[in-house]
Amino acid sequence: MPIAQPFQTAQAITFINHIKQQCPLVHCITNDVVQNFTANVLLAIGASPAMIIAEQEVESFVIIADSLLINIGTIHNSTANSMLLAAKKAQQTQTPWVLDPVAVGPSLSYRTDIAHQLLSFNPTVIRGNASEILALNGQNASSKGPDSQDSTQSALNTAKALAQQYQTIVAMTGDVDYITDGNTTYSITGGDVALTKVTGTGCSLSAMVAAFIANSPDPLQATASACLMMKKAGELANKQQGLGTFAVSILDQLSTFNSTHE
Amino acid sequence: MPIAQPFQTAQAITFINHIKQQCPLVHCITNDVVQNFTANVLLAIGASPAMIIAEQEVESFVIIADSLLINIGTIHNSTANSMLLAAKKAQQTQTPWVLDPVAVGPSLSYRTDIAHQLLSFNPTVIRGNASEILALNGQNASSKGPDSQDSTQSALNTAKALAQQYQTIVAMTGDVDYITDGNTTYSITGGDVALTKVTGTGCSLSAMVAAFIANSPDPLQATASACLMMKKAGELANKQQGLGTFAVSILDQLSTFNSTHE
Amino acid sequence: MPIAQPFQTAQAITFINHIKQQCPLVHCITNDVVQNFTANVLLAIGASPAMIIAEQEVESFVIIADSLLINIGTIHNSTANSMLLAAKKAQQTQTPWVLDPVAVGPSLSYRTDIAHQLLSFNPTVIRGNASEILALNGQNASSKGPDSQDSTQSALNTAKALAQQYQTIVAMTGDVDYITDGNTTYSITGGDVALTKVTGTGCSLSAMVAAFIANSPDPLQATASACLMMKKAGELANKQQGLGTFAVSILDQLSTFNSTHE
Repeated sequence: MPIAQPFQTAQAITFINHIKQQCPLVHCITNDVVQNFTANVLLAIGASPAMIIAEQEVESFVIIADSLLINIGTIHNSTANSMLLAAKKAQQTQTPWVLDPVAVGPSLSYRTDIAHQLLSFNPTVIRGNASEILALNGQNASSKGPDSQDSTQSALNTAKALAQQYQTIVAMTGDVDYITDGNTTYSITGGDVALTKVTGTGCSLSAMVAAFIANSPDPLQATASACLMMKKAGELANKQQGLGTFAVSILDQLSTFNSTHE
Repeated sequence: MPIAQPFQTAQAITFINHIKQQCPLVHCITNDVVQNFTANVLLAIGASPAMIIAEQEVESFVIIADSLLINIGTIHNSTANSMLLAAKKAQQTQTPWVLDPVAVGPSLSYRTDIAHQLLSFNPTVIRGNASEILALNGQNASSKGPDSQDSTQSALNTAKALAQQYQTIVAMTGDVDYITDGNTTYSITGGDVALTKVTGTGCSLSAMVAAFIANSPDPLQATASACLMMKKAGELANKQQGLGTFAVSILDQLSTFNSTHE
Repeated sequence: MPIAQPFQTAQAITFINHIKQQCPLVHCITNDVVQNFTANVLLAIGASPAMIIAEQEVESFVIIADSLLINIGTIHNSTANSMLLAAKKAQQTQTPWVLDPVAVGPSLSYRTDIAHQLLSFNPTVIRGNASEILALNGQNASSKGPDSQDSTQSALNTAKALAQQYQTIVAMTGDVDYITDGNTTYSITGGDVALTKVTGTGCSLSAMVAAFIANSPDPLQATASACLMMKKAGELANKQQGLGTFAVSILDQLSTFNSTHE
């Protein structure tokens, strides 16, 4: 039995086109560093972002949104409560939602505790790097901050176990992306190391996953499609001038993505 | 009687040059998604942005600022109070100020209540899309989030009524922009649909309006000039590479805008 | 005795390379306007940014970070407390840290009070413009907002006095940058006036300084190296298209910086 099935561009195209047709309304409660880039990424792929964060509003907005993203990158008291309220409501209304457990680990126990509370509300997808997936499962991870220090290969079994335990999809991204529900696992290679040198590529990928799983009959392949799209955009983006132009070019590539990219 | 008078580039040039000469200090209390883009837009047109948000500071800063922007996009408890304090002070000191009522509507009653409280402090200009203008007037709007689902043509009478009721200027932007004080109405066509695919173009236009009405003898034409400048920048910006380059190019166009654009 | 020694690119190269080798983890508590640009600047020079702001987390993260940045640009109740906790811990653990006292002055007394409390925790470097350095020392400054209205030449004696009083390094940037510990003073000329027309160039320079002083045997020259690198990036960046492209090009230049820039 193969460990993982390579996921191909041809499989992703249907899901990519689905976003453009549906223009899903994606409710984002995300970190302060990446709000602008995340909104522009969602607009670039054809989705409609809405950053609604007040405790008074998150529950009613989850009801009308097509999907929800919760990213704990710059979590603090006020946003933590909004995140818990939104996740609980998403579980009740069966709104698909994505948890991005930025920088969880033993040295940041506050966010790690909140992440575990959020897990109890049954996220549709957990999207993180290898260090975050290991830490979320209570294992030793090498990372001290938001950047991963572990390989996705080394954490694949943990990702599968986490998916099975919480009956969720784990999208663990890095040199090789793995997308697993504990039974079926897809792998995606390619991309570019420069993607790790632009802030928000991982966080905005989590938002893309939220857009892709909105009204989707196949959340596992929808999630893999989002990961593939970001990897391809990273491959195709202009790396000649430096990281500033590269970041702009990622948005260019996402907004002009078409089925000839194989 | 014509419904609206077309507003021309030749009329805007005086107001555009006025910004560069005066370098108005624009106090911005705006949403987390667009802070960076808004600051860069204000710098590009020759204004000086200042994002001061603490409850302890907003009142004293309104006094020294040349104008004020209040944008409720990511409103929550703490910022709501700062907004109310700033708006009240602006009314007292007759500091011109702009209200951007992002995403008001029945499904988001918290912000809608705050927006109505803010309205009681007599904004100089309300800048919103058609759905927001309809919702602010208590009418049915089609939008569920920050993106408009209604046409400005269909909401023009509402915009005029709102302007008259609150003795304010309403700048309602979309395919066609309408700028009205309830009596005189200007229209601006052109622009580019890509402007709706970059986050913050509407929000930063509201900041531009704040810059334009600072120390202006004609706030109605000043507001129309800001709207025209953004539409022209959208027309002239580079759309060949995709939305990332387009967003960068908007800033380029605003910073190099000159009177030959007709 | 010369007032200040010109600091040269050749002196900076060792420090610039040091960042790329060490990839310091820089804990940033900074303002909402510049979070994205700051993170991208740090990634561009080879550092690892982490924006951790919760009161529950800042102390434990200071312990594992290589350095700390505190920027009070959009300070409010909640972030003020996190800043004070982090600075106090940094003093205890001798973690090098940078204070960026954005917009201090008599019209904004709340942040000015907090800045003085932060000063009591012995920052390694204070990075500000001339108006901020004057105001921090209790003198009259001409600025009303974040943009300086005073020249660095006119404030140099104040910068030296401030450095001596608090036994710190003062990096005062403007037309001419001065970096002083009260005894030795370096000057850096060049740069480009367009750097003042892109938001966050000063704030992200403060973050660069934090990266440069991490594990550095010579914090004074490390600080000067960061200032020189930003000035050179500003000189080399593309100014032909306008301010949008210029901002992107600064990141390009920082990420491709090499020793041939003299």
